[in-house]
Amino acid sequence: MNPSVIALLHGPDKPGIVAKVSTWIHQRGGNVLHADQHLDRQENVFFQRVEWEVSATHEPRQESDDFVSFVQNELDMQVRIGLSNDRPKVAIMVSKADHCFHDLVLRVRAGEWMADFAGVISNHDHLQSVSESYGLPFYHLPVTQETKQDVEDKQVAWLQDQGVQLVILARYMQILSPSFLQNVGCPVINIHHSFLPSFAGARPYHQAYQRGVKLIGATAHYVTEDLDEGPIIEQDVARVSHRHGPKDLIEKGRDLEKLVLSTAVRRHLQNRVLDYQNKTVVFD
Amino acid sequence: MNPSVIALLHGPDKPGIVAKVSTWIHQRGGNVLHADQHLDRQENVFFQRVEWEVSATHEPRQESDDFVSFVQNELDMQVRIGLSNDRPKVAIMVSKADHCFHDLVLRVRAGEWMADFAGVISNHDHLQSVSESYGLPFYHLPVTQETKQDVEDKQVAWLQDQGVQLVILARYMQILSPSFLQNVGCPVINIHHSFLPSFAGARPYHQAYQRGVKLIGATAHYVTEDLDEGPIIEQDVARVSHRHGPKDLIEKGRDLEKLVLSTAVRRHLQNRVLDYQNKTVVFD
Amino acid sequence: MNPSVIALLHGPDKPGIVAKVSTWIHQRGGNVLHADQHLDRQENVFFQRVEWEVSATHEPRQESDDFVSFVQNELDMQVRIGLSNDRPKVAIMVSKADHCFHDLVLRVRAGEWMADFAGVISNHDHLQSVSESYGLPFYHLPVTQETKQDVEDKQVAWLQDQGVQLVILARYMQILSPSFLQNVGCPVINIHHSFLPSFAGARPYHQAYQRGVKLIGATAHYVTEDLDEGPIIEQDVARVSHRHGPKDLIEKGRDLEKLVLSTAVRRHLQNRVLDYQNKTVVFD
Amino acid sequence: MNPSVIALLHGPDKPGIVAKVSTWIHQRGGNVLHADQHLDRQENVFFQRVEWEVSATHEPRQESDDFVSFVQNELDMQVRIGLSNDRPKVAIMVSKADHCFHDLVLRVRAGEWMADFAGVISNHDHLQSVSESYGLPFYHLPVTQETKQDVEDKQVAWLQDQGVQLVILARYMQILSPSFLQNVGCPVINIHHSFLPSFAGARPYHQAYQRGVKLIGATAHYVTEDLDEGPIIEQDVARVSHRHGPKDLIEKGRDLEKLVLSTAVRRHLQNRVLDYQNKTVVFD
Repeated sequence: MNPSVIALLHGPDKPGIVAKVSTWIHQRGGNVLHADQHLDRQENVFFQRVEWEVSATHEPRQESDDFVSFVQNELDMQVRIGLSNDRPKVAIMVSKADHCFHDLVLRVRAGEWMADFAGVISNHDHLQSVSESYGLPFYHLPVTQETKQDVEDKQVAWLQDQGVQLVILARYMQILSPSFLQNVGCPVINIHHSFLPSFAGARPYHQAYQRGVKLIGATAHYVTEDLDEGPIIEQDVARVSHRHGPKDLIEKGRDLEKLVLSTAVRRHLQNRVLDYQNKTVVFD
Repeated sequence: MNPSVIALLHGPDKPGIVAKVSTWIHQRGGNVLHADQHLDRQENVFFQRVEWEVSATHEPRQESDDFVSFVQNELDMQVRIGLSNDRPKVAIMVSKADHCFHDLVLRVRAGEWMADFAGVISNHDHLQSVSESYGLPFYHLPVTQETKQDVEDKQVAWLQDQGVQLVILARYMQILSPSFLQNVGCPVINIHHSFLPSFAGARPYHQAYQRGVKLIGATAHYVTEDLDEGPIIEQDVARVSHRHGPKDLIEKGRDLEKLVLSTAVRRHLQNRVLDYQNKTVVFD
Repeated sequence: MNPSVIALLHGPDKPGIVAKVSTWIHQRGGNVLHADQHLDRQENVFFQRVEWEVSATHEPRQESDDFVSFVQNELDMQVRIGLSNDRPKVAIMVSKADHCFHDLVLRVRAGEWMADFAGVISNHDHLQSVSESYGLPFYHLPVTQETKQDVEDKQVAWLQDQGVQLVILARYMQILSPSFLQNVGCPVINIHHSFLPSFAGARPYHQAYQRGVKLIGATAHYVTEDLDEGPIIEQDVARVSHRHGPKDLIEKGRDLEKLVLSTAVRRHLQNRVLDYQNKTVVFD
Repeated sequence: MNPSVIALLHGPDKPGIVAKVSTWIHQRGGNVLHADQHLDRQENVFFQRVEWEVSATHEPRQESDDFVSFVQNELDMQVRIGLSNDRPKVAIMVSKADHCFHDLVLRVRAGEWMADFAGVISNHDHLQSVSESYGLPFYHLPVTQETKQDVEDKQVAWLQDQGVQLVILARYMQILSPSFLQNVGCPVINIHHSFLPSFAGARPYHQAYQRGVKLIGATAHYVTEDLDEGPIIEQDVARVSHRHGPKDLIEKGRDLEKLVLSTAVRRHLQNRVLDYQNKTVVFD
């Protein structure tokens, strides 16, 4: 059976988009499996995710290419496309905390996601042996004020060499420069250990303790040049009380961070996320 | 501006349904606002909810009728249809507990839903004066073993006289007979004060206390002849502990019941719920 | 049976507090029903809530007074005390939005809490007739820039005349001045329609929509002179998506606001909340 | 600094228990860190968890023993006791599904819990190499109808040899016989992949799909001779929709199972759980 094609499109709303897209697919013998759409009436922007089985007599990769041309030329919209059997290359950047790292690797090994790990980049060597025991190349690049620019160049070069299509910051405790983000050429997803926009910046669990909140949170977002300000993909919270000191919040937060980051990555890999005007449309 | 049309359709899957539906709408100058679909691949049944703005030159009620004919005749599927400015007539059946009753009435008065209350049927007179202070006709029909059949006939007659399109059992503590359900001619939604299928039957909070569960729940479902076995529309839970006795569970459960029942009713009134093989597809 | 006594105490930790308190109660024939304590090890402050049945031969009010003397003189700690059958006088301040108002009144009428409403203060007259239909005195005091000081004086005078022991701001859209807070002589609980500290200030749902958060929240807190910065009593969140515009967030937020505010008020009325260094200890 | 002592006691309620316990501790120079109690007024049973720092001049193990004698002889209650630096020996029993297995091992390695793994027992060899890569002895004991009794004898012998104090069934797909449970001599915690009492027995996710529930759950409980009927320690749920087939429920359920099982184990290891009349009191 052919893999299915998944397309994400968006652009100014106009009459008949749904009809044109579904007719295009139907005329080629495709069978729509899922279709979800959203109309931002304030901005008059139309968003659609559509997944269809390609006719047995068609070649899926060719059909994808044809669809992209159709959307760009005839609908004048932007489109992103994938096949259901794609296995994008993913890299993890990590520092010392390892809970998200293990969680991500074990999910891929368990077959929860379609993805292959290119390897692990870290500014510390703490996770070198465990990465290698998982069979993952480990690229240790310590960062100092002086070497930062040079290290980022090496990181970008390695990520591009590997053909990485998604970078996951799994508690990577360095700020990436605008030039890294411009050059890396693929999306970067970060987990922030607070319910953004509350407690942006450093030591969010200590900030949360200080303020006496009754719920702590975690936020996964695409990384942009504005620190902790990128489009939010997923958030979740857990209840805490006066009994929890900063150390308890950190421990309790680990489970939140794992769940929120993995949910965001899964949705991204399944082509369910469109970012637009610093927000996301998530078709789940 | 014309109201929009909302259609719910389902039937055996076949190629091109989405294309045909959206083309039909587009050709009449309609603009699709939302479309959501689901394919049950085990049963090969296709479900769709589609909402569109009718062209200013068309008459919405006429377009609805035409669409129904189209779906039945050309797609051979079942369809239910409504307009966005419909205000269906709703009746509440209630016994003594009044939390869901107040909650429903206040939501309608606050304009959260498009609906009009035909009135209140009760087997007790406890809520007579408060119903009337809300301006709602109150029909007091005590039920005994002997009068049950006769009372149900009166209930059905009154509901039909009023043109009621939805009956809400807001903690109505009588079991409705199969003949009531066959004759009433509209859906009946019930709130059950447990996380079904756990603790079906009487005194669910006492059962939950006895079993020592750590979460209590509530379930809103369409009523069928099989008691507590109808298609589930919505469920939710709340955390409890050893500190909560049966009385605490009952009190804590009230908030759950209000939220779960009102969510189910809202979704039903917005034409978001399709029931099929004793389950529901909820497009939210 | 005698009512039980509930005491909340806190002060610098020192050896033997628990033993001294429980021995004091035991020697007077009291039977401890609940006791909960917390030690803030960073600040070395000890907190306790203890509830006991008074011996049939003692007079509860007298035993309360004796206990207060004991705690102040022999333990050198601060204490707040109540009886389980106290019915404190409560006032609601409200503007136009009425969902929290109805929710609070109906809970008291349903017997969920031990409290009596002294009445309703509003800067608008929208809720006058419904307040009066509930049997609640309604005090209409429009507020302008010029009259604000004068109006607050009237509010304080009325609240004190009525012997009000708790003021609930149920979506009262005026900022209370420091002098009001100093003079009112009782705690003031506010509901803020965001997950503080996110989106403090005006129009939080619009801010939340703008930022694209995936959860919205509500926060109940004691009011202090620092706007939206008082000690948090309770918070909760609800999931939203790109489908929810500001209007949907406002509507969805109503249920959150009702639940969070009523939970905070209940805990306060049950003497479960101690505020300390702009945070709360909640014994639930 | 001395470790603290944690005691869990329960028995018929009578006047002065709290005073006697706290006075006993205070007289030996101990400082109470936490104390939590519960009175089951239906059954008139009193429960307490108390944790105290032992005076620097006392020997904690001796003080524990003395306290046990005191509670048994002078209060006539049952007591369980531990020190805050205890590292109980724990064994995991597992079949093929490995998500809970990895989760438990990684939490211990991360220092989240005080415990040491004695090793892994499995009726399959799938997890042998990964267990050994974690440094855990792996005891492979295939089970057939004929060998079951014999295998259980070997399991019990090995668990006792190792001095195991807690057995965790991390998705072990064999039913343990009454004689195993009588002989093993320590508590056994199981994770059931449904919100008990719903969907007890086999293939709960398929049952849940069939019934069309809107939330799936997981339940951790002590194992008793009545299958899936033991005292519940922890439960949680996750929202699902018509879009989730049985396979999706299984995948989504994995995260629930990990969280619920690990929460139950943590609470057990921290001496926070008392089971009584097939329910649990959890002091958290």
